[in-house]
Amino acid sequence: MLTSTPFPKSFASDNHAGVHPAVLAAIAEANAGDAPAYGGDAWTLAMEDAFRAEFGAQTTVYPMFNGTGANVVGLGLTLRPYDAVLCPATAHINVSECGAAERVLGTKLIPLPTDDGKLRIDDLRGELSALGNVQHSQPRVISISQVTECGTCYTADEIAELADFAHARGLLLHMDGARLANAAAELGCSMRALTTDAGVDLFSFGGTKNGAMGAEALVILNPELDAPALFLRKQGMQLASKMRFVSAQLTALLSGDLWRENAAHANAMAHRLADGVTDLPGVSLRYPVQSNAVFPALPEKAIMELQQRYLFHVWEADENVVRWVTSFDTTAEHVDTFIADIRLAVHGRSDS
Amino acid sequence: MLTSTPFPKSFASDNHAGVHPAVLAAIAEANAGDAPAYGGDAWTLAMEDAFRAEFGAQTTVYPMFNGTGANVVGLGLTLRPYDAVLCPATAHINVSECGAAERVLGTKLIPLPTDDGKLRIDDLRGELSALGNVQHSQPRVISISQVTECGTCYTADEIAELADFAHARGLLLHMDGARLANAAAELGCSMRALTTDAGVDLFSFGGTKNGAMGAEALVILNPELDAPALFLRKQGMQLASKMRFVSAQLTALLSGDLWRENAAHANAMAHRLADGVTDLPGVSLRYPVQSNAVFPALPEKAIMELQQRYLFHVWEADENVVRWVTSFDTTAEHVDTFIADIRLAVHGRSDS
Amino acid sequence: MLTSTPFPKSFASDNHAGVHPAVLAAIAEANAGDAPAYGGDAWTLAMEDAFRAEFGAQTTVYPMFNGTGANVVGLGLTLRPYDAVLCPATAHINVSECGAAERVLGTKLIPLPTDDGKLRIDDLRGELSALGNVQHSQPRVISISQVTECGTCYTADEIAELADFAHARGLLLHMDGARLANAAAELGCSMRALTTDAGVDLFSFGGTKNGAMGAEALVILNPELDAPALFLRKQGMQLASKMRFVSAQLTALLSGDLWRENAAHANAMAHRLADGVTDLPGVSLRYPVQSNAVFPALPEKAIMELQQRYLFHVWEADENVVRWVTSFDTTAEHVDTFIADIRLAVHGRSDS
Amino acid sequence: MLTSTPFPKSFASDNHAGVHPAVLAAIAEANAGDAPAYGGDAWTLAMEDAFRAEFGAQTTVYPMFNGTGANVVGLGLTLRPYDAVLCPATAHINVSECGAAERVLGTKLIPLPTDDGKLRIDDLRGELSALGNVQHSQPRVISISQVTECGTCYTADEIAELADFAHARGLLLHMDGARLANAAAELGCSMRALTTDAGVDLFSFGGTKNGAMGAEALVILNPELDAPALFLRKQGMQLASKMRFVSAQLTALLSGDLWRENAAHANAMAHRLADGVTDLPGVSLRYPVQSNAVFPALPEKAIMELQQRYLFHVWEADENVVRWVTSFDTTAEHVDTFIADIRLAVHGRSDS
Repeated sequence: MLTSTPFPKSFASDNHAGVHPAVLAAIAEANAGDAPAYGGDAWTLAMEDAFRAEFGAQTTVYPMFNGTGANVVGLGLTLRPYDAVLCPATAHINVSECGAAERVLGTKLIPLPTDDGKLRIDDLRGELSALGNVQHSQPRVISISQVTECGTCYTADEIAELADFAHARGLLLHMDGARLANAAAELGCSMRALTTDAGVDLFSFGGTKNGAMGAEALVILNPELDAPALFLRKQGMQLASKMRFVSAQLTALLSGDLWRENAAHANAMAHRLADGVTDLPGVSLRYPVQSNAVFPALPEKAIMELQQRYLFHVWEADENVVRWVTSFDTTAEHVDTFIADIRLAVHGRSDS
Repeated sequence: MLTSTPFPKSFASDNHAGVHPAVLAAIAEANAGDAPAYGGDAWTLAMEDAFRAEFGAQTTVYPMFNGTGANVVGLGLTLRPYDAVLCPATAHINVSECGAAERVLGTKLIPLPTDDGKLRIDDLRGELSALGNVQHSQPRVISISQVTECGTCYTADEIAELADFAHARGLLLHMDGARLANAAAELGCSMRALTTDAGVDLFSFGGTKNGAMGAEALVILNPELDAPALFLRKQGMQLASKMRFVSAQLTALLSGDLWRENAAHANAMAHRLADGVTDLPGVSLRYPVQSNAVFPALPEKAIMELQQRYLFHVWEADENVVRWVTSFDTTAEHVDTFIADIRLAVHGRSDS
Repeated sequence: MLTSTPFPKSFASDNHAGVHPAVLAAIAEANAGDAPAYGGDAWTLAMEDAFRAEFGAQTTVYPMFNGTGANVVGLGLTLRPYDAVLCPATAHINVSECGAAERVLGTKLIPLPTDDGKLRIDDLRGELSALGNVQHSQPRVISISQVTECGTCYTADEIAELADFAHARGLLLHMDGARLANAAAELGCSMRALTTDAGVDLFSFGGTKNGAMGAEALVILNPELDAPALFLRKQGMQLASKMRFVSAQLTALLSGDLWRENAAHANAMAHRLADGVTDLPGVSLRYPVQSNAVFPALPEKAIMELQQRYLFHVWEADENVVRWVTSFDTTAEHVDTFIADIRLAVHGRSDS
Repeated sequence: MLTSTPFPKSFASDNHAGVHPAVLAAIAEANAGDAPAYGGDAWTLAMEDAFRAEFGAQTTVYPMFNGTGANVVGLGLTLRPYDAVLCPATAHINVSECGAAERVLGTKLIPLPTDDGKLRIDDLRGELSALGNVQHSQPRVISISQVTECGTCYTADEIAELADFAHARGLLLHMDGARLANAAAELGCSMRALTTDAGVDLFSFGGTKNGAMGAEALVILNPELDAPALFLRKQGMQLASKMRFVSAQLTALLSGDLWRENAAHANAMAHRLADGVTDLPGVSLRYPVQSNAVFPALPEKAIMELQQRYLFHVWEADENVVRWVTSFDTTAEHVDTFIADIRLAVHGRSDS
């Protein structure tokens, strides 16, 4: 039998985790004889109901294979050939999708520097002078990530302010919600409060990092954007033939509160981890912990020692900032053992 | 509990079928704690071994989400910005991928008419006069489907002849192998005989229609094409984060002979179906049965009657040609019941 | 001083000719001190007036550098990312633009075989079954060339019929009018009768082959298509900074009847040429002469002999069809000398 | 007769100027009967000789219609589908080409902030950590503008340092040389010293702003990049049919020293202008004057008053920085009158 990594629980990413048992069971239950391909099956219809229950009656939803696919197909619905996307420089679409937006959509991304991965209105104003200037790509969409790539969250009010700013200027608000569940869990609100109610036009919903096997979705809240979605999903190479098996995963997370349980648990583990190390000398948090990720600066020697035994990424090499991510199946014991090892690595042997 | 379609066994597509139990078991077994994301996990390494065992030591293989993704990423490895793909007019890349090749790759497809979905060298010669002419896209790749969209197969010799023709002119041979397993089963040979040994440069391997949940692969046999594959897969939105669950499906099909059993059974059911109806008046086969699909012309009235109770597609409306597809889980009983209903529909009640 | 070709008058293309003196004079006159760049100058405003006078008050017009640019920018105004263009297989956009439409627009061209370069409604019907099918690119534009790449013309009624067919199905009619002037001259009608009045939505206007130095234009007759034109022209690399010098060329052709004189003369020379050789044994016309091009089949030996002394292209090598093109500055003497040499080449020396 | 602007000599752009008489004469001389289209004519061959004389024997050169075309086709020669271009945030390719690079090439531009439009090696290092990371676009080309969009120049040594840095890491150095002539004139060196000898791989040569009617060129110094140039120029909609009229313009500038005379004169006028106003209260230069552009900060009231009578652009509205550009035909009298009016506008009437 194949075995997984020789390391203990990974802190490298929430996609190092496996699949939540309830999701795996839902997949197995969906294997019940024939079903129409490409959507239209009973499981996809049920999934659509679950999204409407969560996000409102006007919601349309399209299962996607991965987050890059959901982002690219979603942005594709909003952009004319000469349009640009305003996004934080740290955005996944800007730095972690190998140029898919530029290549597949032919669009320009305009990356804006931020302190903490969060766009603010003052970051945007300067770019809007390009509107109407035929030499410039036309800003059309503001894209934010919730939670951000820095682990921080926008409040519902902050999102609403961005949406109002966008809509007042004929722009749209897009959200990369790969970890939207973590944000809602952290803020103690519904996912709807952070999307539909805040004026988001469309977003990518992330299931994979929340315990699915591989299930993301493009969720459209502004019905004017919906018409070409089926075509762009197909063209964007995101149309699953046996779609029921993707839909069933999403339904397993959304019906009931599994999405919230998984996210809240992962967040709690991140806070536990941060709390266990921030008193250490030479350890400081680069960003506040607001989800399931911790970005500490550590002594370089400690990083090297810990990477012998734990999987995690160096985030900013120049400043010895690393990223630790927890997931639905990270246990308190995993965290406490890691804390102990971190303390040892920072203090040296004499610490014991 | 959700139920599947109200219809009996679908004859519309082999992707209406569910997942083979052995594949589902392999997925569940892969859910064993943490594993690195994006490949590099033990299941992906095992899958790579399985492909090398089947296709030769120089093989590289990249799991993909669907056939369109595998085709587009694969062709992307072969094309300069001004290159064109020569393909049958019936090719999936030409008529069933919503223009993904043109949109994502910016490439020109040059569709060539065929009688039976199979390209022959005489179809190609005329296009090669464009070579070196700066006003024309440059033919660079010949793309064939095995089995074709008409259910027909190329023999190993026919493929080798196309490969030799291509290579002698600096072109490459690409294969859309969404149903390569069915071809090998039908021809009684290895998949390697139809690819590596015949000179194919790269191909899409189809697992989904062979009993997987959703698992295709890009397989590269010409090592010169391999270098950018990781980048183009990511950019092509085909990089699975929890890749082990895709890899495990492919391994389940390839290790042992599950791929052949599934394909041979589906093919046998198609032959059984064809044999059961071709004696009927007004029924004739548009293409010979060489895989798991039957393309009969039927009286229009019979088509309308059968579509009340069975799922299948009309293929050429003008000529009353329909397509019936069998799958790994089509039983002899399914087929025999369908035959009886077809006979009734063609003959009318008095036939009984 | 540099000299031109060692050959007598070229029959290879109407773009082997130089610039009509009136056009050259107009360029020199436009060199009158400063003018705003990128349009907005007095010469561009005058050119816009000239196009409105010819094509109607709703006309908008955008100077372009070449025909490929005009075609690509124009089609770009009509296409969503998943749309396709229906065009004759012989269309310049399909075979003579090195895949620009696919590469720059990401669009699919669906080439349809024709006898004479002219699309007819029966050629189109079969493709419209793709409308609404998410697996297919969506036919959105019918693109015709006037005159065609075979030298043939559509009548105003034929164009109107295509336009009505398109509009009744939500499609648009685009025209590559690189030689629109020749068609109007041949048919003895206005250019407006073949475009605005016939229901054409937008077209490329060709000035270069009509006696300009390098001046084409995108002309939009359907105002709904106009909004993004300035952006797509810039992005399509067709925005001239010193635009007045392009505009002045177009005005020189359009104000007064220079366009018609040039085209009518070129056409007359083509008819004179055809009339002078069609009685010869082994000489037949592949297409009727309806503009400034002649497509004769000739004995292969005569082709080889004539190409020693004359520039012209072989059109269909398999069938020994060549193309002879006349231009505004082809004289009757040029033609008569060529005829004499053709007769000699076909008959051999004993003919004299 | 049409008249030009009601304003005196424009200071808005060097492309508000007309055509140098010697260039216009060269165009007229090229109108000498027939010539082959698409290059291969005698004037294009002579132009190629002129570029080889200036830039070295390995030079290949391709006339282009405009700077955007030259930049996009040139970058297209260097980029794989997943590559990125490192450029200053101010680069013309980033902010003044309406997203052409993203749309036509599908490439990612990575804009880097600079103080004065000049990239330095320290700006680049951080981006190179992306090399080999499959989630990231791969930095492949460093693109600089000479002169920059801020009017500043790189020294030959600075260019060589960037070229060495690039080549040592497998990257290439591209130059947008829309005003390369102005840089060479300012630095008192040959254009070759700033390109070939400094290790530039390929660059766009600007003729239009130097006195041509509309003539740019892509110049390739690294022969490994040359092979696809003819195809990409055609596909990039930059292939002139009557190319001799573009080539003749370039030859007029390059043979003899017309390029240098025109550039040196324009530069001298910019220095004269700057020298005439920098003593004024509230007037300061945003960038040093190193070419034919002056970027002064002015009192807002003076800007508004001057724009009633002069054409020029506001560059940074927040800081009241404007841009004044001189050209080959700006006279000392133009400048002195402008200076007087500026002094009046800044001081008010009492200054006289």
